[in-house]
Amino acid sequence: MQVAIVVFEGVTLLDAVGPYHVWRSLPGVEVVWVAERPGVVGDGRGGAVVAEYGLEEVARPDVVCVPGGPGQEALMGGGAVVDWVRAVDEGSAWTVSVCTGALVLAAAGLLEGRRATTHWLARGELGAWGVRVVEERVVFDGKYASGAGVSAGIDVALALGGRLVGVEAAQRVQLMSEYDPAPPWDAGSPGRAPGSVVAWARERSRFCR
Amino acid sequence: MQVAIVVFEGVTLLDAVGPYHVWRSLPGVEVVWVAERPGVVGDGRGGAVVAEYGLEEVARPDVVCVPGGPGQEALMGGGAVVDWVRAVDEGSAWTVSVCTGALVLAAAGLLEGRRATTHWLARGELGAWGVRVVEERVVFDGKYASGAGVSAGIDVALALGGRLVGVEAAQRVQLMSEYDPAPPWDAGSPGRAPGSVVAWARERSRFCR
Repeated sequence: MQVAIVVFEGVTLLDAVGPYHVWRSLPGVEVVWVAERPGVVGDGRGGAVVAEYGLEEVARPDVVCVPGGPGQEALMGGGAVVDWVRAVDEGSAWTVSVCTGALVLAAAGLLEGRRATTHWLARGELGAWGVRVVEERVVFDGKYASGAGVSAGIDVALALGGRLVGVEAAQRVQLMSEYDPAPPWDAGSPGRAPGSVVAWARERSRFCR
Repeated sequence: MQVAIVVFEGVTLLDAVGPYHVWRSLPGVEVVWVAERPGVVGDGRGGAVVAEYGLEEVARPDVVCVPGGPGQEALMGGGAVVDWVRAVDEGSAWTVSVCTGALVLAAAGLLEGRRATTHWLARGELGAWGVRVVEERVVFDGKYASGAGVSAGIDVALALGGRLVGVEAAQRVQLMSEYDPAPPWDAGSPGRAPGSVVAWARERSRFCR
Protein backbone atom coordinates (compact mmCIF):
# COMPACT_ATOMS: atom_id res chain seq x y z
CA MET A 1 0.00 0.00 0.00
CA GLN A 2 1.45 3.34 -1.04
CA VAL A 3 0.72 6.57 0.82
CA ALA A 4 1.80 9.81 -0.85
CA ILE A 5 2.27 12.99 1.16
CA VAL A 6 2.57 16.02 -1.07
CA VAL A 7 4.76 18.86 0.18
CA PHE A 8 5.35 22.37 -1.13
CA GLU A 9 7.32 25.49 -0.26
CA GLY A 10 5.78 26.91 2.90
CA VAL A 11 4.31 23.63 4.13
CA THR A 12 3.95 23.32 7.89
CA LEU A 13 6.27 20.43 8.68
CA LEU A 14 4.29 19.07 11.62
CA ASP A 15 1.16 18.81 9.45
CA ALA A 16 3.09 16.36 7.29
CA VAL A 17 5.41 14.63 9.76
CA GLY A 18 2.71 13.65 12.26
CA PRO A 19 0.82 11.52 9.71
CA TYR A 20 4.10 10.37 8.15
CA HIS A 21 5.23 8.95 11.46
CA VAL A 22 1.98 7.10 12.04
CA TRP A 23 1.63 5.66 8.55
CA ARG A 24 5.26 4.71 7.98
CA SER A 25 5.03 2.66 11.17
CA LEU A 26 2.07 0.60 9.93
CA PRO A 27 2.78 -2.85 8.50
CA GLY A 28 2.67 -3.10 4.73
CA VAL A 29 2.55 0.64 4.17
CA GLU A 30 5.10 2.62 2.16
CA VAL A 31 5.01 6.39 2.58
CA VAL A 32 6.51 8.58 -0.13
CA TRP A 33 7.17 12.31 -0.10
CA VAL A 34 6.11 14.01 -3.32
CA ALA A 35 6.61 17.57 -4.53
CA GLU A 36 6.30 19.51 -7.75
CA ARG A 37 9.99 18.82 -8.21
CA PRO A 38 11.94 16.25 -6.18
CA GLY A 39 14.47 17.60 -3.72
CA VAL A 40 14.57 19.90 -0.76
CA VAL A 41 11.31 21.58 0.18
CA GLY A 42 11.47 24.39 2.72
CA ASP A 43 8.84 25.46 5.20
CA GLY A 44 9.84 29.11 4.98
CA ARG A 45 10.79 29.04 8.66
CA GLY A 46 14.20 27.40 8.48
CA GLY A 47 13.02 23.82 8.32
CA ALA A 48 13.09 21.58 5.27
CA VAL A 49 12.26 18.06 4.22
CA VAL A 50 13.29 16.11 1.16
CA ALA A 51 10.76 15.01 -1.44
CA GLU A 52 12.02 11.86 -3.07
CA TYR A 53 9.60 12.05 -5.96
CA GLY A 54 8.18 14.56 -8.37
CA LEU A 55 4.45 14.62 -9.01
CA GLU A 56 4.67 12.77 -12.32
CA GLU A 57 6.50 9.88 -10.66
CA VAL A 58 3.63 9.07 -8.29
CA ALA A 59 0.56 8.38 -10.36
CA ARG A 60 -1.56 6.01 -8.36
CA PRO A 61 -1.08 6.16 -4.58
CA ASP A 62 -3.59 4.27 -2.48
CA VAL A 63 -3.72 7.16 -0.06
CA VAL A 64 -2.95 10.79 -0.85
CA CYS A 65 -2.47 13.32 1.92
CA VAL A 66 -2.29 17.11 1.60
CA PRO A 67 -0.91 18.99 4.60
CA GLY A 68 -1.37 22.71 5.14
CA GLY A 69 0.83 25.67 5.84
CA PRO A 70 1.23 29.27 4.70
CA GLY A 71 2.44 28.06 1.30
CA GLN A 72 -0.95 26.49 0.62
CA GLU A 73 -2.28 29.90 -0.36
CA ALA A 74 -0.02 29.99 -3.41
CA LEU A 75 -1.52 26.70 -4.60
CA MET A 76 -5.12 27.81 -4.45
CA GLY A 77 -5.28 29.40 -7.88
CA GLY A 78 -4.65 26.03 -9.48
CA GLY A 79 -1.56 24.57 -11.06
CA ALA A 80 0.47 21.41 -10.96
CA VAL A 81 -0.19 20.42 -7.35
CA VAL A 82 -3.96 20.95 -7.51
CA ASP A 83 -4.11 19.15 -10.86
CA TRP A 84 -2.11 16.25 -9.45
CA VAL A 85 -4.32 15.99 -6.37
CA ARG A 86 -7.41 15.90 -8.58
CA ALA A 87 -5.86 13.26 -10.83
CA VAL A 88 -4.59 10.88 -8.16
CA ASP A 89 -7.85 11.22 -6.25
CA GLU A 90 -9.50 9.35 -9.12
CA GLY A 91 -7.55 6.24 -8.20
CA SER A 92 -7.10 6.69 -4.46
CA ALA A 93 -8.77 4.58 -1.81
CA TRP A 94 -8.49 7.49 0.62
CA THR A 95 -7.86 11.19 0.15
CA VAL A 96 -6.76 13.01 3.29
CA SER A 97 -6.10 16.56 4.37
CA VAL A 98 -4.53 18.09 7.45
CA CYS A 99 -5.15 21.69 8.52
CA THR A 100 -5.51 24.03 5.53
CA GLY A 101 -4.69 21.16 3.20
CA ALA A 102 -8.48 20.85 3.07
CA LEU A 103 -8.54 24.09 1.08
CA VAL A 104 -6.36 22.45 -1.56
CA LEU A 105 -8.75 19.51 -1.78
CA ALA A 106 -11.57 22.03 -2.11
CA ALA A 107 -9.71 23.92 -4.85
CA ALA A 108 -9.34 20.60 -6.66
CA GLY A 109 -13.11 20.29 -6.56
CA LEU A 110 -13.14 17.25 -4.33
CA LEU A 111 -15.05 18.44 -1.29
CA GLU A 112 -18.12 20.20 -2.63
CA GLY A 113 -21.12 19.24 -0.53
CA ARG A 114 -18.94 17.01 1.65
CA ARG A 115 -18.34 17.18 5.39
CA ALA A 116 -14.79 18.19 6.29
CA THR A 117 -12.75 20.00 8.90
CA THR A 118 -9.73 22.32 8.78
CA HIS A 119 -7.75 24.73 10.97
CA TRP A 120 -10.30 26.52 13.14
CA LEU A 121 -9.34 29.91 11.68
CA ALA A 122 -9.93 28.61 8.12
CA ARG A 123 -13.44 27.28 8.61
CA GLY A 124 -15.06 30.26 6.90
CA GLU A 125 -12.79 30.02 3.89
CA LEU A 126 -13.40 26.29 3.56
CA GLY A 127 -17.14 26.85 3.77
CA ALA A 128 -16.90 29.36 0.93
CA TRP A 129 -15.87 26.44 -1.32
CA GLY A 130 -19.20 24.75 -0.73
CA VAL A 131 -17.86 22.39 1.92
CA ARG A 132 -20.03 21.42 4.89
CA VAL A 133 -17.53 22.43 7.56
CA VAL A 134 -17.72 20.38 10.74
CA GLU A 135 -16.23 21.60 14.02
CA GLU A 136 -14.62 18.28 14.83
CA ARG A 137 -11.01 17.21 15.08
CA VAL A 138 -11.27 14.33 12.61
CA VAL A 139 -13.95 14.02 9.96
CA PHE A 140 -14.63 11.16 7.55
CA ASP A 141 -16.99 11.52 4.61
CA GLY A 142 -16.81 8.58 2.24
CA LYS A 143 -13.20 8.16 1.21
CA TYR A 144 -12.32 11.69 2.34
CA ALA A 145 -10.71 12.19 5.73
CA SER A 146 -9.75 15.55 7.17
CA GLY A 147 -8.01 16.70 10.31
CA ALA A 148 -8.25 20.05 12.07
CA GLY A 149 -5.22 22.30 12.57
CA VAL A 150 -1.59 21.13 12.50
CA SER A 151 -1.38 18.63 15.36
CA ALA A 152 -4.67 16.97 14.37
CA GLY A 153 -2.74 15.22 11.62
CA ILE A 154 -1.67 12.63 14.18
CA ASP A 155 -5.26 11.93 15.16
CA VAL A 156 -6.60 11.63 11.61
CA ALA A 157 -3.64 9.44 10.67
CA LEU A 158 -4.27 7.05 13.53
CA ALA A 159 -7.99 6.91 12.82
CA LEU A 160 -7.32 6.15 9.17
CA GLY A 161 -4.62 3.69 10.18
CA GLY A 162 -7.22 1.65 12.01
CA ARG A 163 -9.24 1.45 8.82
CA LEU A 164 -6.19 0.63 6.67
CA VAL A 165 -4.63 -2.16 8.70
CA GLY A 166 -6.96 -2.78 11.63
CA VAL A 167 -7.35 -1.19 15.03
CA GLU A 168 -4.85 -3.37 16.88
CA ALA A 169 -2.04 -2.63 14.42
CA ALA A 170 -2.80 1.09 14.66
CA GLN A 171 -2.84 0.89 18.46
CA ARG A 172 0.63 -0.65 18.32
CA VAL A 173 1.83 2.47 16.53
CA GLN A 174 0.09 4.65 19.08
CA LEU A 175 1.82 2.82 21.93
CA MET A 176 5.24 2.82 20.26
CA SER A 177 4.83 6.55 19.67
CA GLU A 178 3.71 6.92 23.29
CA TYR A 179 0.83 9.00 22.01
CA ASP A 180 -0.81 9.62 25.35
CA PRO A 181 -0.84 13.40 25.06
CA ALA A 182 -0.77 15.67 28.06
CA PRO A 183 -0.78 19.32 26.97
CA PRO A 184 0.35 21.56 29.81
CA TRP A 185 -2.71 23.78 29.36
CA ASP A 186 -6.24 23.43 28.01
CA ALA A 187 -5.55 26.04 25.36
CA GLY A 188 -5.66 24.05 22.14
CA SER A 189 -9.19 24.84 21.03
CA PRO A 190 -10.89 28.21 20.53
CA GLY A 191 -13.76 27.05 22.71
CA ARG A 192 -11.61 26.52 25.78
CA ALA A 193 -8.41 28.58 25.40
CA PRO A 194 -8.22 31.77 27.48
CA GLY A 195 -10.15 34.61 25.85
CA SER A 196 -7.05 36.77 25.45
CA VAL A 197 -5.28 33.96 23.60
CA VAL A 198 -8.23 33.43 21.25
CA ALA A 199 -8.50 37.17 20.63
CA TRP A 200 -4.81 37.35 19.75
CA ALA A 201 -5.18 34.50 17.28
CA ARG A 202 -8.25 36.02 15.63
CA GLU A 203 -6.37 39.27 15.11
CA ARG A 204 -3.65 37.52 13.16
CA SER A 205 -3.93 38.13 9.47
CA ARG A 206 -3.84 34.50 8.42
CA PHE A 207 -4.14 31.02 9.88
CA CYS A 208 -1.66 28.24 10.16
CA ARG A 209 1.57 30.19 10.61
CA MET B 1 17.30 33.16 21.69
CA GLN B 2 18.77 30.26 19.73
CA VAL B 3 17.45 26.71 19.99
CA ALA B 4 19.54 23.97 18.39
CA ILE B 5 18.00 20.62 17.49
CA VAL B 6 20.63 18.05 16.68
CA VAL B 7 19.71 15.42 14.11
CA PHE B 8 21.50 12.28 12.97
CA GLU B 9 21.02 9.40 10.56
CA GLY B 10 18.18 7.29 11.93
CA VAL B 11 16.55 10.09 13.91
CA THR B 12 12.80 9.76 14.39
CA LEU B 13 11.48 12.80 12.57
CA LEU B 14 8.46 13.38 14.79
CA ASP B 15 10.71 13.51 17.88
CA ALA B 16 12.40 16.52 16.30
CA VAL B 17 9.60 18.17 14.32
CA GLY B 18 7.10 18.33 17.21
CA PRO B 19 9.39 20.53 19.33
CA TYR B 20 10.62 22.37 16.24
CA HIS B 21 7.08 23.42 15.41
CA VAL B 22 6.39 24.66 18.92
CA TRP B 23 9.64 26.54 19.40
CA ARG B 24 9.88 28.12 15.94
CA SER B 25 6.44 29.60 16.57
CA LEU B 26 7.51 31.35 19.79
CA PRO B 27 8.38 35.06 19.58
CA GLY B 28 12.08 35.87 19.62
CA VAL B 29 13.19 32.27 19.18
CA GLU B 30 15.35 31.02 16.32
CA VAL B 31 15.49 27.27 15.84
CA VAL B 32 18.42 25.76 13.96
CA TRP B 33 18.91 22.21 12.73
CA VAL B 34 22.39 20.90 13.43
CA ALA B 35 24.08 17.67 12.37
CA GLU B 36 27.56 16.23 12.31
CA ARG B 37 27.76 17.52 8.75
CA PRO B 38 25.29 20.01 7.26
CA GLY B 39 22.94 18.70 4.60
CA VAL B 40 20.34 16.00 4.22
CA VAL B 41 19.82 13.73 7.23
CA GLY B 42 17.72 10.63 6.69
CA ASP B 43 15.56 8.80 9.18
CA GLY B 44 16.25 5.42 7.63
CA ARG B 45 12.56 5.07 6.77
CA GLY B 46 12.34 7.21 3.66
CA GLY B 47 12.03 10.56 5.38
CA ALA B 48 14.71 13.21 5.59
CA VAL B 49 15.27 16.70 6.92
CA VAL B 50 17.95 19.22 6.11
CA ALA B 51 20.47 20.33 8.73
CA GLU B 52 21.57 23.84 7.92
CA TYR B 53 24.55 23.72 10.23
CA GLY B 54 27.38 21.43 11.20
CA LEU B 55 28.18 20.92 14.85
CA GLU B 56 31.17 23.26 14.84
CA GLU B 57 29.00 26.11 13.52
CA VAL B 58 26.70 26.12 16.53
CA ALA B 59 28.78 26.65 19.62
CA ARG B 60 26.54 28.36 22.13
CA PRO B 61 22.81 27.70 21.71
CA ASP B 62 20.57 28.84 24.54
CA VAL B 63 18.62 25.62 24.27
CA VAL B 64 19.90 22.32 22.94
CA CYS B 65 17.52 19.47 22.13
CA VAL B 66 18.39 15.86 21.37
CA PRO B 67 15.64 13.76 19.79
CA GLY B 68 15.67 9.98 19.69
CA GLY B 69 15.32 7.30 17.08
CA PRO B 70 16.95 4.03 16.10
CA GLY B 71 20.08 5.90 15.01
CA GLN B 72 20.66 7.05 18.57
CA GLU B 73 22.21 3.66 19.35
CA ALA B 74 25.13 4.39 17.03
CA LEU B 75 25.89 7.55 18.98
CA MET B 76 26.07 5.90 22.38
CA GLY B 77 29.71 4.86 22.23
CA GLY B 78 30.75 8.49 22.07
CA GLY B 79 31.96 10.61 19.21
CA ALA B 80 31.31 14.01 17.69
CA VAL B 81 27.62 14.30 18.59
CA VAL B 82 28.02 13.26 22.22
CA ASP B 83 31.08 15.52 22.57
CA TRP B 84 29.17 18.43 21.06
CA VAL B 85 26.19 17.89 23.36
CA ARG B 86 28.50 17.84 26.37
CA ALA B 87 30.27 21.00 25.21
CA VAL B 88 27.20 23.10 24.38
CA ASP B 89 25.51 22.00 27.58
CA GLU B 90 28.14 24.01 29.44
CA GLY B 91 26.68 27.22 28.02
CA SER B 92 23.04 26.27 27.59
CA ALA B 93 20.19 27.66 29.61
CA TRP B 94 18.20 24.49 28.93
CA THR B 95 19.19 21.04 27.74
CA VAL B 96 16.31 18.94 26.46
CA SER B 97 15.73 15.39 25.28
CA VAL B 98 12.86 13.68 23.56
CA CYS B 99 12.35 9.90 23.64
CA THR B 100 15.67 8.02 23.59
CA GLY B 101 17.52 11.30 23.16
CA ALA B 102 17.76 11.06 26.94
CA LEU B 103 20.21 8.20 26.46
CA VAL B 104 22.48 10.52 24.49
CA LEU B 105 22.37 13.08 27.30
CA ALA B 106 23.20 10.26 29.69
CA ALA B 107 26.10 9.10 27.52
CA ALA B 108 27.38 12.67 27.61
CA GLY B 109 27.42 12.40 31.40
CA LEU B 110 24.75 15.03 31.93
CA LEU B 111 22.01 13.10 33.71
CA GLU B 112 23.74 11.12 36.43
CA GLY B 113 21.67 11.32 39.58
CA ARG B 114 19.08 13.46 37.84
CA ARG B 115 15.38 12.82 37.31
CA ALA B 116 14.50 12.21 33.66
CA THR B 117 12.08 10.35 31.43
CA THR B 118 12.42 8.55 28.08
CA HIS B 119 10.51 6.17 25.80
CA TRP B 120 8.75 3.69 28.09
CA LEU B 121 10.65 0.76 26.60
CA ALA B 122 13.99 2.48 27.30
CA ARG B 123 13.47 3.18 30.98
CA GLY B 124 15.67 0.31 32.09
CA GLU B 125 18.51 1.33 29.80
CA LEU B 126 18.32 4.94 30.98
CA GLY B 127 18.37 3.80 34.60
CA ALA B 128 21.54 1.83 33.89
CA TRP B 129 23.27 5.17 33.27
CA GLY B 130 22.59 6.23 36.83
CA VAL B 131 19.56 8.33 35.96
CA ARG B 132 16.57 8.50 38.31
CA VAL B 133 13.98 7.48 35.74
CA VAL B 134 10.54 8.96 36.34
CA GLU B 135 7.42 7.50 34.74
CA GLU B 136 6.05 10.85 33.67
CA ARG B 137 5.50 12.39 30.27
CA VAL B 138 7.51 15.54 30.91
CA VAL B 139 10.21 15.86 33.55
CA PHE B 140 12.19 18.92 34.60
CA ASP B 141 15.26 18.69 36.82
CA GLY B 142 17.16 21.95 37.05
CA LYS B 143 17.94 23.05 33.52
CA TYR B 144 17.31 19.55 32.12
CA ALA B 145 13.96 18.78 30.53
CA SER B 146 12.99 15.42 29.10
CA GLY B 147 9.99 14.07 27.28
CA ALA B 148 8.76 10.48 27.04
CA GLY B 149 8.45 8.65 23.71
CA VAL B 150 8.17 10.36 20.30
CA SER B 151 4.97 12.40 20.55
CA ALA B 152 5.85 13.68 24.05
CA GLY B 153 8.22 16.09 22.34
CA ILE B 154 5.26 18.38 21.73
CA ASP B 155 4.35 18.39 25.41
CA VAL B 156 7.88 19.02 26.69
CA ALA B 157 8.36 21.75 24.09
CA LEU B 158 5.19 23.56 25.14
CA ALA B 159 6.04 23.25 28.82
CA LEU B 160 9.51 24.65 28.19
CA GLY B 161 8.03 27.29 25.91
CA GLY B 162 6.03 28.62 28.84
CA ARG B 163 9.23 29.01 30.80
CA LEU B 164 11.10 30.60 27.88
CA VAL B 165 8.61 33.25 26.80
CA GLY B 166 5.73 33.06 29.26
CA VAL B 167 2.63 30.92 29.49
CA GLU B 168 0.37 33.13 27.40
CA ALA B 169 2.78 33.21 24.45
CA ALA B 170 3.12 29.43 24.63
CA GLN B 171 -0.65 29.02 24.79
CA ARG B 172 -0.91 31.07 21.59
CA VAL B 173 1.26 28.48 19.88
CA GLN B 174 -0.86 25.69 21.34
CA LEU B 175 -4.02 27.29 19.98
CA MET B 176 -2.52 28.07 16.56
CA SER B 177 -1.36 24.44 16.39
CA GLU B 178 -4.84 23.38 17.50
CA TYR B 179 -3.13 21.08 20.00
CA ASP B 180 -6.26 19.73 21.61
CA PRO B 181 -5.41 16.10 21.04
CA ALA B 182 -8.05 13.40 20.71
CA PRO B 183 -6.42 10.03 20.13
CA PRO B 184 -8.94 7.57 18.73
CA TRP B 185 -8.03 5.01 21.41
CA ASP B 186 -6.59 5.04 24.90
CA ALA B 187 -3.63 3.00 23.76
CA GLY B 188 -0.73 5.41 24.09
CA SER B 189 0.64 4.29 27.44
CA PRO B 190 1.71 0.84 28.58
CA GLY B 191 -0.47 1.20 31.66
CA ARG B 192 -3.68 1.57 29.69
CA ALA B 193 -3.14 0.08 26.22
CA PRO B 194 -4.75 -3.31 25.57
CA GLY B 195 -2.63 -6.12 27.00
CA SER B 196 -2.06 -7.72 23.61
CA VAL B 197 -0.71 -4.43 22.25
CA VAL B 198 1.66 -3.98 25.18
CA ALA B 199 2.84 -7.59 24.86
CA TRP B 200 3.56 -7.09 21.16
CA ALA B 201 5.60 -3.99 21.92
CA ARG B 202 7.58 -5.67 24.67
CA GLU B 203 8.50 -8.49 22.30
CA ARG B 204 10.05 -6.09 19.83
CA SER B 205 13.78 -6.15 19.95
CA ARG B 206 14.29 -2.42 20.36
CA PHE B 207 12.35 0.71 21.25
CA CYS B 208 11.54 3.77 19.25
CA ARG B 209 11.25 2.30 15.76
